[in-house]
Amino acid sequence: MSENTTDSDAHTSTKAQLKELSQKLGVVQREAGSLGIPSLVIVEGLDASMKGRLLNEVLLEIDSRSFRVYSTHAGQQDPRRYPLLHRFWNNTPAKGKIQFYDRGPYYLVLDSWAEGKLHEDELPSYWEDIVNFERQLHDSGVKIVKLFLNVSKKTQAKRFRKLEDNPKTAWRVTPKDWRRHRQYRSYLETAKQGMEATNRDYASWHTIDTENFKTALVDVYNHIIDTLENAIEEQRALLALPKEERNWVTYQGHNYLADTQFEEPMDRQLYKKTLKQRQEKIHELVHEIHSHELPVVIAFCGWDAAGKGGCIKRLVQSIDPRGYDVNPVAAPNQVELSHHYLWRFWKEMPPRGKIAIFDRSWYGRVLVERVEALCSNDDWQRAYREMNQMEEHLAKFGTTILKFWLHIDKDTQLERFEARQTDPLKNWKITDEDWRNREKWERYEESVNEMIEKTNTDYAPWKIIPANCKMRARLEVLDTVISSLKKAIKRARKAAL
Amino acid sequence: MSENTTDSDAHTSTKAQLKELSQKLGVVQREAGSLGIPSLVIVEGLDASMKGRLLNEVLLEIDSRSFRVYSTHAGQQDPRRYPLLHRFWNNTPAKGKIQFYDRGPYYLVLDSWAEGKLHEDELPSYWEDIVNFERQLHDSGVKIVKLFLNVSKKTQAKRFRKLEDNPKTAWRVTPKDWRRHRQYRSYLETAKQGMEATNRDYASWHTIDTENFKTALVDVYNHIIDTLENAIEEQRALLALPKEERNWVTYQGHNYLADTQFEEPMDRQLYKKTLKQRQEKIHELVHEIHSHELPVVIAFCGWDAAGKGGCIKRLVQSIDPRGYDVNPVAAPNQVELSHHYLWRFWKEMPPRGKIAIFDRSWYGRVLVERVEALCSNDDWQRAYREMNQMEEHLAKFGTTILKFWLHIDKDTQLERFEARQTDPLKNWKITDEDWRNREKWERYEESVNEMIEKTNTDYAPWKIIPANCKMRARLEVLDTVISSLKKAIKRARKAAL
Repeated sequence: MSENTTDSDAHTSTKAQLKELSQKLGVVQREAGSLGIPSLVIVEGLDASMKGRLLNEVLLEIDSRSFRVYSTHAGQQDPRRYPLLHRFWNNTPAKGKIQFYDRGPYYLVLDSWAEGKLHEDELPSYWEDIVNFERQLHDSGVKIVKLFLNVSKKTQAKRFRKLEDNPKTAWRVTPKDWRRHRQYRSYLETAKQGMEATNRDYASWHTIDTENFKTALVDVYNHIIDTLENAIEEQRALLALPKEERNWVTYQGHNYLADTQFEEPMDRQLYKKTLKQRQEKIHELVHEIHSHELPVVIAFCGWDAAGKGGCIKRLVQSIDPRGYDVNPVAAPNQVELSHHYLWRFWKEMPPRGKIAIFDRSWYGRVLVERVEALCSNDDWQRAYREMNQMEEHLAKFGTTILKFWLHIDKDTQLERFEARQTDPLKNWKITDEDWRNREKWERYEESVNEMIEKTNTDYAPWKIIPANCKMRARLEVLDTVISSLKKAIKRARKAAL
Repeated sequence: MSENTTDSDAHTSTKAQLKELSQKLGVVQREAGSLGIPSLVIVEGLDASMKGRLLNEVLLEIDSRSFRVYSTHAGQQDPRRYPLLHRFWNNTPAKGKIQFYDRGPYYLVLDSWAEGKLHEDELPSYWEDIVNFERQLHDSGVKIVKLFLNVSKKTQAKRFRKLEDNPKTAWRVTPKDWRRHRQYRSYLETAKQGMEATNRDYASWHTIDTENFKTALVDVYNHIIDTLENAIEEQRALLALPKEERNWVTYQGHNYLADTQFEEPMDRQLYKKTLKQRQEKIHELVHEIHSHELPVVIAFCGWDAAGKGGCIKRLVQSIDPRGYDVNPVAAPNQVELSHHYLWRFWKEMPPRGKIAIFDRSWYGRVLVERVEALCSNDDWQRAYREMNQMEEHLAKFGTTILKFWLHIDKDTQLERFEARQTDPLKNWKITDEDWRNREKWERYEESVNEMIEKTNTDYAPWKIIPANCKMRARLEVLDTVISSLKKAIKRARKAAL
């Protein structure tokens, strides 16, 4: 222990204080846990600021079932395979749990910058991504504590040397540590700029001086305890409020679906021939996607019985099963419900060179969850921005994103429902829920139009596919995929020059 | 399509047959799904045996929510980081689902052998591991289909050349493919030996000739449909049976717990000093574990209030958080319950260089699940062998495995329960369930003794820790960890010479 206190009374009093704080943390976490409050503690800081020891000490009194630690450790896996936020999204807290980051996204950004892999001009855009991430968590009820462990340049050098002097610990000091030490001033300056850019009421930074281990530990305890105590108070106040009335919020904007032009059914022979050609083209392009390491997301949304499954089948038929994953989206399970609604989608986002296909998507938030009042009005209204932000982050990483809405008219749906019901091979596809959804056609229509209005972006465009004729719909899906992949490949070729 | 049929009637009839089969597969899978039957289809075979195309075709008529495909693709991730079976355990089917392997563990073993990384003499031991894996799945109710797609040497060459002749597909044929082609005879011979060694009633091999795509497809359909149909029949018969009476099965063998010698409480000052020394030693050793890339598993089991949490805390206190994970084991959640009982533990097994600590473990199967009749007698009686096999597979990979039983006497437990109940900081630790468990002390005692009798192995030994004195218990745990790590490091050093 790098203990500078000489006064033995002060020593005893800090010790008693620490014991009290550690017990208090245990008590408030159990309380927060029982109220289902999720929290996130991001521990960032300079090298030799005793992060590991401080974290270990804090964890000692928390029940191991109630927390998880994620260590961000450049090099642990290939960080280039996924977008920056991927690993953090996958390690967000479930209800009632604390998630610790032993360094978090800030470190990854700063490290890339310090290693010359990221230009200074690019930093603001990454700070913004992290702000969006934290805001989304906050809005879903996650309490955030952000700690920056500081140490003076002199003490840092002293600690490095102390480790080096001991043959058993000398391995812990690497050339990179000394390199970073020489950059001390500019690194700290950039870190401070990052903190300034990402400081928010609900996610404010606490810089902790670590010259003295025990006082630093007291600070760490206090920040976490304060946040949890406030959260408990807020949550109790919330629970005491009367339940929100969920009124239908109408959308009066442009009716995109009404613009759809349905054409006559096409000739089956022509369809078959064209389909084969398109599939061959897809087969070729997917190889290039793989060799250029381009990630691709294709989301299929649409009315019940619009033919999503059939389109997906024709799309993947010619692709090597190693090149794609189909993610069917059903109602969330118990584990998924204890997380942020985007968590289960983030987990399935593709690494470089892979295609992730979604059979239904995250847009359920502003469709079924809106119509059935499964979330509050605030929740789905906020979701347009949240989903745009997620897609923008993926796009920045180089992900091609395509979103299809398969559109049929109400009569066609009825025909298909009835046909399904009388066909013993297809009647499993039709449930009471489908009929109930159909009764709410107008509300869904409004929801779809508002969704397109608010989430049709350059980086993740919606494509409405007229799907009264299944054959035409399938070909148009393939054509759209082909032209998007071609564009992505062209860009990648240019970038490689 | 490599279609050799010239007779147009035969062509039409195959087409109709295929359509019928694909619909039938859809029907039986929905039936199997509704009965909660999990199934596993392992597709192995030679290069150019049209695995991808056959698989894609089969998947077309199955509801995408009911299956998953795992592609074993050497090089996809570093396969050396985890034991062979790790990725397959993590991709076993949930209840009611079909899991496909696009090549499976057989391919990995054969590929290593063909590349000269695995000696022929080592093959039988790997076949045995795979047999154990399949048996465990079968015993838990998974239906297994194993297909080997065959192709003649001549046709293989023809298909390679056809791909090479087309500039768009030439990339698909690699030097490795031609190398494997030259080895055709010995590769097929070895594959056949593997199939013979792993052929079982419940997991028998079907070799499918793929000279003709459509007849091969008919074969694939038939094998899967047959297996599912049989499974449905069996499951219905099972459901019709009266429920098994779950009688307590007593254990009359050696009483290991009774051998425990409890010593007097130790001196606190001596404890503190010794603890610090041991923790420093652990700190050093963990670095070597990391640099030698040794995986370590430490399982903490014991009576309620025996002090597992305290031991774990002292153990990890001096370890860098990046070097270990603590996995708290509670009652399984909904997702975990839909899988094999070992699935959730397999997922947490450590990669090279990492320590996985379990706070309670897979032995719950033969403790709480036995005592509370949460599984059938068959289930827990079989589990001794299954857990030994899992541990043996980990040990073969180089994993050091330590299993602690923290033992206290009944009076000590009562004292601690009462102390917890009166301490406002600790009363959350004591629940009605703890008191109920205590009433069943004798049944737990029998279960623990039988567990030790049957799962105390060279590769994964049990250590009973007398824990009436918490301080002694903690030190003995650390001493045991230290000596095991030292041994592992010594072996690794020797192997590196």
